[in-house]
Amino acid sequence: MTTNFYAPPSAFRGQRVVLPDDEARHVCSVLRAEAGDEIMVVDGEGVWSRVRIDHAAPEQVVGTVKERRTDVGEPDVSVTVGMGMLTKRDRFETFVEKAVELGVARIAPLSTRHTEQASVRADRLRRIMIAAVKQCRRSRVPALAGPKSLDELLAGTTAERRFICHGESDAVPLGPALEDIDGEEVLLLVGPEGGFAPVEVERAQAAGCIPVHLGARRLRAETAGIAALTRVLL
Amino acid sequence: MTTNFYAPPSAFRGQRVVLPDDEARHVCSVLRAEAGDEIMVVDGEGVWSRVRIDHAAPEQVVGTVKERRTDVGEPDVSVTVGMGMLTKRDRFETFVEKAVELGVARIAPLSTRHTEQASVRADRLRRIMIAAVKQCRRSRVPALAGPKSLDELLAGTTAERRFICHGESDAVPLGPALEDIDGEEVLLLVGPEGGFAPVEVERAQAAGCIPVHLGARRLRAETAGIAALTRVLL
Repeated sequence: MTTNFYAPPSAFRGQRVVLPDDEARHVCSVLRAEAGDEIMVVDGEGVWSRVRIDHAAPEQVVGTVKERRTDVGEPDVSVTVGMGMLTKRDRFETFVEKAVELGVARIAPLSTRHTEQASVRADRLRRIMIAAVKQCRRSRVPALAGPKSLDELLAGTTAERRFICHGESDAVPLGPALEDIDGEEVLLLVGPEGGFAPVEVERAQAAGCIPVHLGARRLRAETAGIAALTRVLL
Repeated sequence: MTTNFYAPPSAFRGQRVVLPDDEARHVCSVLRAEAGDEIMVVDGEGVWSRVRIDHAAPEQVVGTVKERRTDVGEPDVSVTVGMGMLTKRDRFETFVEKAVELGVARIAPLSTRHTEQASVRADRLRRIMIAAVKQCRRSRVPALAGPKSLDELLAGTTAERRFICHGESDAVPLGPALEDIDGEEVLLLVGPEGGFAPVEVERAQAAGCIPVHLGARRLRAETAGIAALTRVLL
C-alpha cells in the first residue's frame, strides 16, 4: 500500500464507501487489489479511513470502513499562501504541488502590479492537489481561492502571523522571524516573477505583514514560495 | 539590469571580455544594451565582474571589466547533494534548477536499488544550471558529477557533516540535526521515487551519515531534495 486513495465525503454512507471511477480503476489495474484487501482512503476534508474492499471491479469498488481517524498527516499550523500568478503555468503548477506536499492549508492565487497572468486553471490545479494529497498521505485537500488582489486577501485574512517575501534591505531573514510559531494561523505572501511593487509591500506592512527575505540569492517566484513554506511548515 | 550574464573564464583576457554568442544576442535583443552601458557578468567559477560595454552587436559584444569580485552570491557552506535519478526527467530538472538557486555546490546523480532511470542529460542540465546561476545572481555553476552509486559517492566524499533523508522511525528531524553547521562541508543524500533500501541506509550510516526525516508528510523525491537543501542553505 504505497499511496492513499481519495473519495469525497459524498462517497461515504455510514461505514460503506463507493470509490470514484478513476480511483476504482487505479485500485484494480495498478494496485490489482481484490476483495478482502485493505486500502487507505482520505476524503480531502480531514477524514482518513482504513477500508476493507468488499467488491473490486474496474467499474466499481465498494468497501467497508474499519477504522476512522481525523487530520492524519496534517500540520499543527494553518498556513495560507498568497502566491502571485505566474506567466508560465507549469511553474505555478509545480508550486501548487509542492505547497500541498509541504502542508499548506489554503492557496490564494494573487493578482498584483507585476502579475502578467490573469487566471489559473482551477480544475487542473484541483487534480494536481488531490494527487499530491494522496501521494503525501495528507487527509485534507487545501482550499484553492479564486484569483484576488493583495487588498482583497489582506481584508479577508484572520491570520495572527503575517509575512511578505521581499528581497529588499528592510526585510529580515525568514528563519528567525518564524520563532515561536506554534499552532497559529499564518499568512505568507509571495510575489510573481517581478516581485511585489514597493507600494504593495507598504500596504502589506500596514496590514501587519513582516517583510522577510530568503537569503543572498534571488530565488525564482515559485522557488521562493516553496522555500518559504518549507521554513514555515517543516 | 535584472539578470547577470555568463561568460566562461576563457572569454576573459586581462580586462577585456568577449561574450559568448547566445549571451551577446541576449544583451542586444532583450536588454537592448548599447556601448557605454554596464552589465554584470559571472564566469561560473566564482568571479563576478562589472563590465562596461565597448561594442554591442548581436554577433559580438565586447566589454571592459571595471570591477571584479569573488564568490558574490555564494553561500558559506559547501553542500554536495547526492540525488537519486528520477524516472521523470522533468522532475529531476526541476530539482536541479531549484538546487542551484538555493546554493548547492555539487550535484551527484545517484544510481540506487530503487532507481529506474539510468542516465541524465548532462548538456541539458548544464544549460539549466547556467540559466539558474544567472537568474539567482550566483557566481559559481555547481559541479555536476556523472551518475554514480551510493558506495562510489560515499567513498569519494570529504564532507564533515553527512545526512541521508529517510522517512523511517530511526530518523531524526532534519532541522535540529543541522544545528551548528557553519562553514562546513555537507553531504546530503536523497533517494529516488522509491526511497533508499534499508541496506543502503545502513551503508550510509556506516559511512557517518545521520538518517534524517522531513516531517509527517511523505514528500516526492524532488520535493524532499528541495526542502532539505532549503533547510541546509537558507
